[in-house]
Amino acid sequence: MNAEIIAVGSELLLGQIVNTNARFLSQHLAGLGIDVYYHTVVGDNPDRLKAAIAHAEARSEIIIFTGGLGPTKDDLTKETIARHLGKELVMDETALASIELYFKRTNRVMTENNRKQALVLEGSQILANDHGMAPGMVLETGGHIYMLLPGPPKEMEPMFLQYGGPALSSKSGSNEKIVSRVLRFFGIGEAALETEVMDIIEAQSNPTIAPLAGDGEVTLRLTAKHPDENIAHTMLDDVEKKINQRVGEFLYGYDNISLLQELTKALKKRNLTVTAAESLTGGLFQQELTAISGASSVFKGGVVCYSNEVKQHILQVNQETLEKHGAVSEQCARELAENAARILAADVGISFTGVAGPDELEGKPVGTVYIGIAVKKSPTIVEKITLSGTRDAIRNRAVKFGCYFLLKNLKESQNAK
Amino acid sequence: MNAEIIAVGSELLLGQIVNTNARFLSQHLAGLGIDVYYHTVVGDNPDRLKAAIAHAEARSEIIIFTGGLGPTKDDLTKETIARHLGKELVMDETALASIELYFKRTNRVMTENNRKQALVLEGSQILANDHGMAPGMVLETGGHIYMLLPGPPKEMEPMFLQYGGPALSSKSGSNEKIVSRVLRFFGIGEAALETEVMDIIEAQSNPTIAPLAGDGEVTLRLTAKHPDENIAHTMLDDVEKKINQRVGEFLYGYDNISLLQELTKALKKRNLTVTAAESLTGGLFQQELTAISGASSVFKGGVVCYSNEVKQHILQVNQETLEKHGAVSEQCARELAENAARILAADVGISFTGVAGPDELEGKPVGTVYIGIAVKKSPTIVEKITLSGTRDAIRNRAVKFGCYFLLKNLKESQNAK
Repeated sequence: MNAEIIAVGSELLLGQIVNTNARFLSQHLAGLGIDVYYHTVVGDNPDRLKAAIAHAEARSEIIIFTGGLGPTKDDLTKETIARHLGKELVMDETALASIELYFKRTNRVMTENNRKQALVLEGSQILANDHGMAPGMVLETGGHIYMLLPGPPKEMEPMFLQYGGPALSSKSGSNEKIVSRVLRFFGIGEAALETEVMDIIEAQSNPTIAPLAGDGEVTLRLTAKHPDENIAHTMLDDVEKKINQRVGEFLYGYDNISLLQELTKALKKRNLTVTAAESLTGGLFQQELTAISGASSVFKGGVVCYSNEVKQHILQVNQETLEKHGAVSEQCARELAENAARILAADVGISFTGVAGPDELEGKPVGTVYIGIAVKKSPTIVEKITLSGTRDAIRNRAVKFGCYFLLKNLKESQNAK
Repeated sequence: MNAEIIAVGSELLLGQIVNTNARFLSQHLAGLGIDVYYHTVVGDNPDRLKAAIAHAEARSEIIIFTGGLGPTKDDLTKETIARHLGKELVMDETALASIELYFKRTNRVMTENNRKQALVLEGSQILANDHGMAPGMVLETGGHIYMLLPGPPKEMEPMFLQYGGPALSSKSGSNEKIVSRVLRFFGIGEAALETEVMDIIEAQSNPTIAPLAGDGEVTLRLTAKHPDENIAHTMLDDVEKKINQRVGEFLYGYDNISLLQELTKALKKRNLTVTAAESLTGGLFQQELTAISGASSVFKGGVVCYSNEVKQHILQVNQETLEKHGAVSEQCARELAENAARILAADVGISFTGVAGPDELEGKPVGTVYIGIAVKKSPTIVEKITLSGTRDAIRNRAVKFGCYFLLKNLKESQNAK
């Protein structure tokens, strides 16, 4: 089957936002074995939307709409589709109830135009919105499947993963099962990894191997098709083994797991708690750690020591260290990691100090980063790395390197035993 | 004039990359007074690209292509357009020379298929590529303007700014200037805001008023067209005044400024420093604050007090408070804010405590949030809010509400003086 994604919203045509929904849906449709041939973006204009629907019907079996399900008068996706298909919009009591509940929960006053969000295409399957108000819809008619999804990614993405995707795979007739697995690497560049495994990639057609780089990480997506799901999985295992013989040392995890989730797992497994002293990263490590539910079992808290006062008075870094070596130094990173672990009574202390830019600091160039890792009962290590890119990129990569170094340290100290 | 943007590349349809080029071009075309009615994405497939061109010609005057100008065999944008228009591809000696120079500069060996990049549509105006090899083209024929741009943003963006945009404005007869301004609101829902200003929106055609919601914020984009730019700005001022008479209390800033940037400005203006005690938000407030370069003038550091131990031992919250009221309580938020300000020697202390989920805490439901604000020399306030959504959404909104409450507090205490 093939699909087309139509994003509705003038804010996209004005360049106010970028169409990340098309990317998200394309990735997951590929995983379902559904080919995407077109993305279309059209504004909040019924006539142009109607025209776009007509074009899509002429060339695509599945038509997925995002956006235009909101409460305001320029939200007109379902109204336009209803008119185009000659269908009625009917009140969905379940959706209405959950919208009313949403307002009760958030102590806000429901306005009349919020009721409009509970109107759905007659005869459509409703996709519940667990993170917002507008319900999604799937309607199969006239040889096409129409799926309507809300525009905000934080509503659309979980809705598609939980309800939309499954609804499509149940409708797509193919008896081939599509199984895919993402291998996640860190500490090796995309070009280097591709060179290592190029011959394997080129020799493969099923499973396919697709490299994708982003944010210092490199991933390989393996996708196998076979009527027997177990055989498809075995096919993935075989290719993965081949790949790991070449670059296995850089593999840190699978699918959507992040370095921080992997680190949290490793700490839990060893019954270790971690704390952080963040100068360069200003709380980024701790906020990403606590974004993982259940982080409280490995993390009690930490300190953002942006200034030297806080490094000295809260984390007891020696004044001499700051005067002699500066805050961006191996010595400071070491004291921050060790003192944070002691003062916050954690098994592991990690510290981040460096220069995020735009200006250099203490005569050290932008991108200079020291990461201290103090693990109870083993010698403290300090890694120096040099990063490039924007302020955000440097901070983000520093956190990833910190996780990577600590993970390596935990695994090695375990192997040593 | 109106335009359509056609991005060519299978990597977009596979979701490997997101179409940021369409956003960039849309923003700048709006600035040139050119309306964008459609974005289309099509793969590296000549037949589907031909079909997309035909659709575009039927509805758009200007057709801008990005991507598919590379040296490899699946780069076929100009070849397909040439065949579609019955034009020849001719070698452009200037482009060829600059490609040869490019290889000399980067000490790389030029391959035969790089010569192919110097082939251009006969009769087209060449747009030099100062950051890569593939030249861009503009061709005016049959009542349409065709513009071909390379795919990589670091080549496309400077090419459009320097050569492509000017080429279009010289061709488009319009002498109208387009001026737009974004009003940013917080603390009012999209539906509620639109109900307030609906009549103004409907009465307006120039300037136009477009609402956009996201992440608890609502924005209104005002866009005015007039040959005299100063008059266009005055038109915006008039509409803004009307809008602010209704909902001005919720306006916090303009254009791309964030609540945190606005807060940083307000603190700087008053020579105040801020610290944070983050339980619920786990460092998110501090990491977003330090993501702003120059934050160090208002922020020295703070504490992530995820566990009660850290609340007690680092931030000196009374054991009795935690036992009697719990960590998710008005009393705890108050002590956290006040003690953080005292212990970290800051003028302002802000605290975040609450239940991010997925599970309830201390018998308090997910979404319960207390934000404490302790400003030197004025009574500490604690705001209780109830949020819904994912763990991330709750944490993100809590930070925004914290900024909003603190901003309000600073402005009011100033007005009080």
